[in-house]
Amino acid sequence: MTDFAQNAARNLARVREKKPLVHNITNYVVMNTTANALLAMGASPVMAHAAGEVEEMVAIAGALVLNIGTLDEHWVAAMIRAAGKAGSLKKPIVLDPVGAGATTLRTETARRLIAEATPSVIRGNASEVLALGKGAAGTKGVDAVHSVSDAKDAARAIAGYLGTVLAITGPEDLVTDGERTIWVENGHPMMGMVTGTGCTATALVGAFLAVDDDPLSAAATALAFYGLAGEAASVSAAAPGSYAVSLIDALFTIDPERLRAGVRIREDR
Amino acid sequence: MTDFAQNAARNLARVREKKPLVHNITNYVVMNTTANALLAMGASPVMAHAAGEVEEMVAIAGALVLNIGTLDEHWVAAMIRAAGKAGSLKKPIVLDPVGAGATTLRTETARRLIAEATPSVIRGNASEVLALGKGAAGTKGVDAVHSVSDAKDAARAIAGYLGTVLAITGPEDLVTDGERTIWVENGHPMMGMVTGTGCTATALVGAFLAVDDDPLSAAATALAFYGLAGEAASVSAAAPGSYAVSLIDALFTIDPERLRAGVRIREDR
Amino acid sequence: MTDFAQNAARNLARVREKKPLVHNITNYVVMNTTANALLAMGASPVMAHAAGEVEEMVAIAGALVLNIGTLDEHWVAAMIRAAGKAGSLKKPIVLDPVGAGATTLRTETARRLIAEATPSVIRGNASEVLALGKGAAGTKGVDAVHSVSDAKDAARAIAGYLGTVLAITGPEDLVTDGERTIWVENGHPMMGMVTGTGCTATALVGAFLAVDDDPLSAAATALAFYGLAGEAASVSAAAPGSYAVSLIDALFTIDPERLRAGVRIREDR
Repeated sequence: MTDFAQNAARNLARVREKKPLVHNITNYVVMNTTANALLAMGASPVMAHAAGEVEEMVAIAGALVLNIGTLDEHWVAAMIRAAGKAGSLKKPIVLDPVGAGATTLRTETARRLIAEATPSVIRGNASEVLALGKGAAGTKGVDAVHSVSDAKDAARAIAGYLGTVLAITGPEDLVTDGERTIWVENGHPMMGMVTGTGCTATALVGAFLAVDDDPLSAAATALAFYGLAGEAASVSAAAPGSYAVSLIDALFTIDPERLRAGVRIREDR
Repeated sequence: MTDFAQNAARNLARVREKKPLVHNITNYVVMNTTANALLAMGASPVMAHAAGEVEEMVAIAGALVLNIGTLDEHWVAAMIRAAGKAGSLKKPIVLDPVGAGATTLRTETARRLIAEATPSVIRGNASEVLALGKGAAGTKGVDAVHSVSDAKDAARAIAGYLGTVLAITGPEDLVTDGERTIWVENGHPMMGMVTGTGCTATALVGAFLAVDDDPLSAAATALAFYGLAGEAASVSAAAPGSYAVSLIDALFTIDPERLRAGVRIREDR
Repeated sequence: MTDFAQNAARNLARVREKKPLVHNITNYVVMNTTANALLAMGASPVMAHAAGEVEEMVAIAGALVLNIGTLDEHWVAAMIRAAGKAGSLKKPIVLDPVGAGATTLRTETARRLIAEATPSVIRGNASEVLALGKGAAGTKGVDAVHSVSDAKDAARAIAGYLGTVLAITGPEDLVTDGERTIWVENGHPMMGMVTGTGCTATALVGAFLAVDDDPLSAAATALAFYGLAGEAASVSAAAPGSYAVSLIDALFTIDPERLRAGVRIREDR
C-alpha cells in the first residue's frame, strides 16, 4: 500500500535537493506564476517553445509540462515536437488540456498531443478531462462544469483507455490510473479565485514526476502539497490578490515534515 | 435620467450572479492581471487568440475585449476575425487601442478593427483615443500626453463620427457617446504607477457590457467600480507592488451596496 | 575616478525627472514584472515586437532592452531589426542573453544580435556571458552554474573582444569593460528565488543607459540600485511571493539620497 504522506515528504525533499529542470511549454497568462511557483518549491523552471530548441531543452530537463491555455498553430507544433522527443527519451510528460471541450481546436490538440506521446499524467478539471474521452461538448470556457465526484467512473474508464494517470482537480481532487482511485482532500476554495492555480498544479506535478517514478504517487502528492499550500495561504489572506502572493510564499515555507503531517489523501476501495 | 450609482450596483450584482464569460484577445503584459481582475470581480475570463478558435470562443462569450498592446500581424488577424464574428452575433466589443498614435501600425490597426465591427466602447487615454479621430502624431509610447479635460470636445466629435461610446481615462474619466458627457471622479493617482490598470479598466467594461445593454452606462459604471477599488487599495498600500495586490483584493471585497454608495459620477450638461 | 554613489543618485533622479521611454523586446515570463519595475522606478516602459513597428518605436525610445528568454524566429527577426535601427540612431542597447549556452539557438541568437549592433551592456549570469565568448556548453537551463568570481578574467577578455560592457550578476555582481573591473556588493539571496529578477536588472540598466552616457557607470549603478531594493525588500518579506511585491515597492520608495548612502561598489585594481 502506498504511503502517500511519506512519498509527499520525500518528493519535496528530493526536489529541493536536486532542483530538477522543468521544461514548460505553457500559456502566456500563467508563465510568470508557474515559474515563481516552481522556483518557490525548489525546482528549476525553464520556458522554451521555439521549434529550433525544444528538443535540445527537453533533453536536459527532468520533466516536460505541456499546457494548451493560449495555444496557436506554432505552439502546437512545438508541443508535438517536444512531446515526441520526451517520449523517445522516456522523460515524463504532464499535459494540461486547458479548455478542452470548449473549442474544437483545444479538444483536437489535446488528443494529438496524447497520440504523439502518452503523458504520464493529464491534469485538468472534470470537463476538460472528460472531453478527452468522449468528445463531450458544453464546457463553459475554462471553468469546471462537471463535478469531480460525478466524474469518477468516467475518469477510470478514460485513464484505462489512454494508459495514463488522470488528475482531476476540484473541491476534492481525483487521481486515477484506471485501477486505483485516490482522493486528495487538501485545498481551499479561494484557489479557484486566482487565475492559473490549475496550471500551477500541473507544473508541480511535473516537478514531482522528475523525482518519483510512480505517476500516481507523483500526481497525488503534488496536488496534496499544493492543496496544503492553499490551506496555509488562507490563514493570512482573505482576498485573491493577497492570497496569490501567500500561495507562492507557502510553497517556499512548507517543509517536508510539515507536508507529511498535513497530507490528506485517501484511497477509494 | 440615468441613475449611475444604481446601475453600478446592479451590474456588479449581475456579474457575480451570471459569471459572464469574457473573451480577451489582449497583450502579453497584462494577461495575468486581467484574468485575475475579472475573476476577482466575479466574471469568467478566457484568453484565446488562435485563428482556428476565436470565432467559436466568441460565440459562447458574453463580451469580447480587444487590446492591441503587444500586437503583431497574427494577433491582428485573429482580432479582426473575432470582431467580425462578434459583430454578426451582436456581441458587445470593447476596444483598447494601446499606443494608437505612437506608431503607424497601432493607429492603423485600431482603425481597421473599428471598421470591421464598431465596438460598443473604446477605452483609452486621451492621446490614444484622439489619434483614432485625427491621426494625431506625438503620443509618447503608452503614456497619456493630452489631458482628459482638454479632450472633451474632440472626444464628443469622434464618438459621434464613429458611432460608439468613448471612455477616456485619466485623473477624471470622460465617457461620451457624442451626445451625453459623463465624468467619473472615482480613482487614485497610484493606479498610474501599476502597469495594465488601463487594460484592466477595459476588461471590466467588457464584463459590464455583458450584463448592461446601455454601453454608456456599462462604461461609466465599470470605471467607477475600478476607481473605487483604486481608492480602497490606497488605504492599505502606499507603493505600487503592494498597491497592485490590494487593487485585486478590492475588486473582490467591494460589494454592490458599497459600490452604490461610493460611485462619484456626474453628467456634464 | 568614478564616484559611483554620486552617479547612482544622479541617474535615479534623472530617470524620475525625464521618465525615459524604455523599449523592451523581452520574454513572456517577465513582461509584467519588467513593466512594473520600470514604472515603479520612474521610467516609462513600452513592450513592442512587431516587425512593422519596432523601428518606429525604438526611434522614440531612450534605450532598447533585448531579452531572449522566450525567443522564436519571429521575435529574433524583430530584435535584429530593432537592434539595427538602434545602432544607426546611436541609441543604447542592453542585451540579456537568457539561457545562452543552454541551447544552440540561444547562443547563436545572442551572437547574431551582438553582431548586428554592439550592445552598450550585456547583462547575464556567468554561464550565459561566458557562453558568448567561448561557446561553452553545459549551462543548466537559465541557472548560473559558473561562479561570478571565477569568471572575472574570462569576462574581462570577452568584454575587450566584444567591445562592450559585461555585467555578470550573482552573489556579487561583476561589471567590466575589459579594462576596469567593478564589483557591486548590493543584493540579497532571496532575489534568486523570484523569477525574472535578472531580467529586471537588465531593464533597469536600460533605464539608466537612457540618462548616463557611460555604460560602465550605468550598469554598475543600476545593479547597485536594484541590489539595494533587494536588501530593503528583505526587511519586510521572508518568502518569495511577498518578497517580489516588496521589491517593486522598494524601487518606488528608495530616493536618490538613500541610494547614494546605500551603494556598495568597489573597483578591483
